[in-house]
Amino acid sequence: MTETTTAALQAAIDQALTADYARLADYLSLETVSAQKRGIPETVAFLEQAFSELGAKVTVWRDVAGSNPFVFATLAAGPNGNANKTLLFYNHYDVQPPEPLDEWQTAPFQLTTVDGKYVARGVSDDKGELMARLSAVKALQNSGGLPCNLKFIVEGEEEIGSGHIEPMVRQHAADLAADGLVWETGGKDADENFNVTCGVKGIMSFEISVQTADNDLHSSLAAYADNAAWRLTQALASLRGPDNQVLVDGFYDDVRALTPVEQQAIAALAFNETATRQNFGLKRPLVTTDPVTALVNATTMTINGLSSGYEGDGVKTVLPNFAKAKLDCRLVPNQQPEKMAKLIQGQLDRNGFADVKVTYLLGEKPFRSDLTDPFVQTAVATAKQVYGERVKLVPNAAGTGPQAPFYEALHTPIVAFGATWAGSGPHAPNENVRVADYQQDVLYTAKVLQAFGIS
Amino acid sequence: MTETTTAALQAAIDQALTADYARLADYLSLETVSAQKRGIPETVAFLEQAFSELGAKVTVWRDVAGSNPFVFATLAAGPNGNANKTLLFYNHYDVQPPEPLDEWQTAPFQLTTVDGKYVARGVSDDKGELMARLSAVKALQNSGGLPCNLKFIVEGEEEIGSGHIEPMVRQHAADLAADGLVWETGGKDADENFNVTCGVKGIMSFEISVQTADNDLHSSLAAYADNAAWRLTQALASLRGPDNQVLVDGFYDDVRALTPVEQQAIAALAFNETATRQNFGLKRPLVTTDPVTALVNATTMTINGLSSGYEGDGVKTVLPNFAKAKLDCRLVPNQQPEKMAKLIQGQLDRNGFADVKVTYLLGEKPFRSDLTDPFVQTAVATAKQVYGERVKLVPNAAGTGPQAPFYEALHTPIVAFGATWAGSGPHAPNENVRVADYQQDVLYTAKVLQAFGIS
Repeated sequence: MTETTTAALQAAIDQALTADYARLADYLSLETVSAQKRGIPETVAFLEQAFSELGAKVTVWRDVAGSNPFVFATLAAGPNGNANKTLLFYNHYDVQPPEPLDEWQTAPFQLTTVDGKYVARGVSDDKGELMARLSAVKALQNSGGLPCNLKFIVEGEEEIGSGHIEPMVRQHAADLAADGLVWETGGKDADENFNVTCGVKGIMSFEISVQTADNDLHSSLAAYADNAAWRLTQALASLRGPDNQVLVDGFYDDVRALTPVEQQAIAALAFNETATRQNFGLKRPLVTTDPVTALVNATTMTINGLSSGYEGDGVKTVLPNFAKAKLDCRLVPNQQPEKMAKLIQGQLDRNGFADVKVTYLLGEKPFRSDLTDPFVQTAVATAKQVYGERVKLVPNAAGTGPQAPFYEALHTPIVAFGATWAGSGPHAPNENVRVADYQQDVLYTAKVLQAFGIS
Repeated sequence: MTETTTAALQAAIDQALTADYARLADYLSLETVSAQKRGIPETVAFLEQAFSELGAKVTVWRDVAGSNPFVFATLAAGPNGNANKTLLFYNHYDVQPPEPLDEWQTAPFQLTTVDGKYVARGVSDDKGELMARLSAVKALQNSGGLPCNLKFIVEGEEEIGSGHIEPMVRQHAADLAADGLVWETGGKDADENFNVTCGVKGIMSFEISVQTADNDLHSSLAAYADNAAWRLTQALASLRGPDNQVLVDGFYDDVRALTPVEQQAIAALAFNETATRQNFGLKRPLVTTDPVTALVNATTMTINGLSSGYEGDGVKTVLPNFAKAKLDCRLVPNQQPEKMAKLIQGQLDRNGFADVKVTYLLGEKPFRSDLTDPFVQTAVATAKQVYGERVKLVPNAAGTGPQAPFYEALHTPIVAFGATWAGSGPHAPNENVRVADYQQDVLYTAKVLQAFGIS
C-alpha cells in the first residue's frame, strides 16, 4: 500500500468519525441491560437501521428459542476487493447494569467526553467497538471499496453468559461461514502495549446459599440458633486458602499444560504492576507472583456479591435466616463449567456444609486459537504497522466470550482487538475509552481488512 | 384479696380491654422506626394524649442533647393505695424496621388478628406491652383506685441502642426515684413457662468492612486482584471456630462466675428444643449443648447482615472493591462493650487482616438484679397466682436493654415481664402476641401493683 492510499484512507476515516459521532451517542443512550431485560427491541431496531445505512443486507434472527434476537449483516467485497475471502465480526449489543449509580461522575447512558475520554456504559464493552468497526467499513467504502466480504453477528446476551450462542451457531453455521473471525474487546494494556488476543477464558457463574430457619430471628437467640450469614461465611472461607488458592479437590485437574508456543507468547508479555495498581487504586498485594501467566492461564473463583440480613442504615439486631453469595469461576482449557459446579458442591459437602447449596447459573467453555495460524500472524503484522513495536500476541484474554461454539461450528481462527485501555473499567462505573485509541482502532480495523483481502 | 375483689378487677379489665382496643391499633399504626428516623413526633404526641386521658401528669423531656424525646408520666396512688411506695415502668415507643416487607402476611403497621394472635410490628416489642400496662392502670382506677404511685418512662431509641438513656437517667434521677422498676418484655417461653426476668445481656453493635480498590473491577482481573468480599469472608471466618466459639483472644475473659443462687435459678429453667425448632423452623443443630445456660450467660457474636458487590438479579461478573458486615455481640456481667470492639480489631490485626476495620456503632452494659431481693420475690409469687406453677425466675434475658444505667442511678431492683410467647418473633416479619396472653398480662400487671402496694 502506498503512502497516498494510506493518506486517502486516513482522510476517509476522519470524515467517517465526524459523521458517525451522533450514531455512537445514540447507540450508547439505549439502556440495553440484558440482566434486567431492558432495552432489547429498540437496540435491535437501531442496529438494523445502522447496518442498512451502510448498504448491508440485514436479518434479525429470532429463531433461537428463548433468546434475545441476533442481528446478522452481510456486505460484499467492493469491485477491487477479494470476493473469495470473508471476514466475520462478533459483537454484542447488551451491556452490564450501570449500578452502583452513585459512583458515576456522569450519566451512564449519555456519551460524555471527559479529559480526552469517551465515558458511558458500553463505550468500551461493547457498543463503542461495533460503532468503530462500522466507521472503518464506511471509510473503506469511501476510499476504494471493501477489500473482502464482511459478515457481522451481534448478540444481545453476552453480559448474561451468551446462553443462546451455541444453538444459534449450530442453526446458522452456513450463514456464518467465514475465513476468519474478529472477536470483540481488546486494546492496550497497562504498559500501553497493543494486544492481539487469540482466545478467552471460560466461565461458570453460580450462587452459594444457605437457609437456617424459616424467618430472621432476634439476634439474642444467637445463644443457641445457628446463623445463615456465619454459615455462608464459614462455607466460603473453607473453599479458599490464605494464599488465595482454591481448596476444592480436582479444581485445577483438567487444566492442560501450555504448549511451547503459548509459553513463548506469555514470556513476551509484560505486566505493569505500578500502572495497574494506580489505575485501579489497588490496596492489597496481588494474589499471585506471576500475574502475566495468571491472566492467561489461571482458574479463578470470585465472589461477585454477598447478601444477608439487614443491610440498611443504623442497627438491626437480627439473626439472618438466609444468606447468599454470587460467584464466578474463570476457566482455562480444558476445564468444563458444569463439572466445576459439581466439584464445588462436593467440597462443601466434604467440608461439613452439605446444607450450603451451589446453584449453577450459566457456563461457557474456554477457547484458545492456534497461535501459529496465518490469520493470527496477519493481525499481528498489521498491528505493528499501526501501533509500532508495542504489540503483544496474547494467547487468550482473562475475560470470557462464546468463542468455543463458533470454533466448534466454523473451524475459523479467532482474534480479538479493540480500543480499550487499562483504565477502561468495562464493567465498572465511569466505563470509558480514550478518544485517540478509538480513532486508532478504526484505522487498524480498516487495515486488517485490507491485509486480509490480499493475503 | 377476696374473690369478690378479684372478680371486680377482672370485670374492670375486660371493660378496659374493650375500650382500649382502638388505642392499641392506633399506636401500632404509627411507623416509629428509630433506625430510619421515622414517626417520632407523632408517636410522642400520641403518648402525651394517652397518659393524659388516664389523669397522669405528663412531661416530655427534650433536654438530653441529640436524643429522641422521653415521655415521662406520673400517677398518684388512689385513696386506698400506699402513697409511700412508687413503682417505675420502663418502655420504649420505637420499633424495629419492618423489612423484609415481602415476608409479612399482613400489613406491618396495621393491627390484624390472625388465629387468635395480634399481628403488627411492635405488638410484642414494645408498643403492645405499654398499652397493656395502661389498660391495667385503667382497670385499677375503675375498681378501687391505684394501689401505689406509678411512674412511666418511655424512650424512643431502644431499637438503636438506647444511646441517650445514660445521660437522661443522670439528669433526671430525682424524677425517676422509685422503689422498684418494671422493665419491658417478657412472657412465656417455648415450654409455656411464664418468666420473671431480672436482668439483660449487654450489647456491642459494630461493622467490619474492607476496601480493596477504588472501584469495583471486572471479575476477570481476579487473576491478580484481591477481592473485598473474599477478604471480608476470610476475616470473619477467622473470628469463629467450627464449634461456633469466638476465636478472639480475651473475648470471654471478663465473664464473672455465676453465683450459687444464679446457678440454682438456671437449673430450674427448661428449654424445649422441639417446640423452639418448630416455632422458628430451625434447620441446623443448636450451636450449644446447654441452651439454658447460654441464653442467660453466653457471650455471642452475630452477623446481622452482609453486603458486597452485585446483589441484584441475573449475573454481574464484578470483583467487588468493598464489603461490609454488620454484627452484634451480646455481653454478660462484667463485659464492657468498648473493650470487646478493641479485642476484635486486635484479633483481626493478628490474623493478618489489619486492613479489615472494626467500626464501633453502639454499646450497652449487661445487668443482673440480686435474685434474693423482695421485689423479685413479690413478682414471682404474684405470677404463681396468675399463671400457676409454670413460673420461672430468669436471672437475665438473652436480649438487651439499658438497665445498667437505671440501676447505677436509682439502685432499684429490676424485673421484666410481658405478654410475648416463643413465637412472637419480636424483630422479624409477622411479629405477634396471642390475644389470651395479652389479656392475662393485663391481669398480672394489675395484681403485681396490688401486691407491691401492700408489701
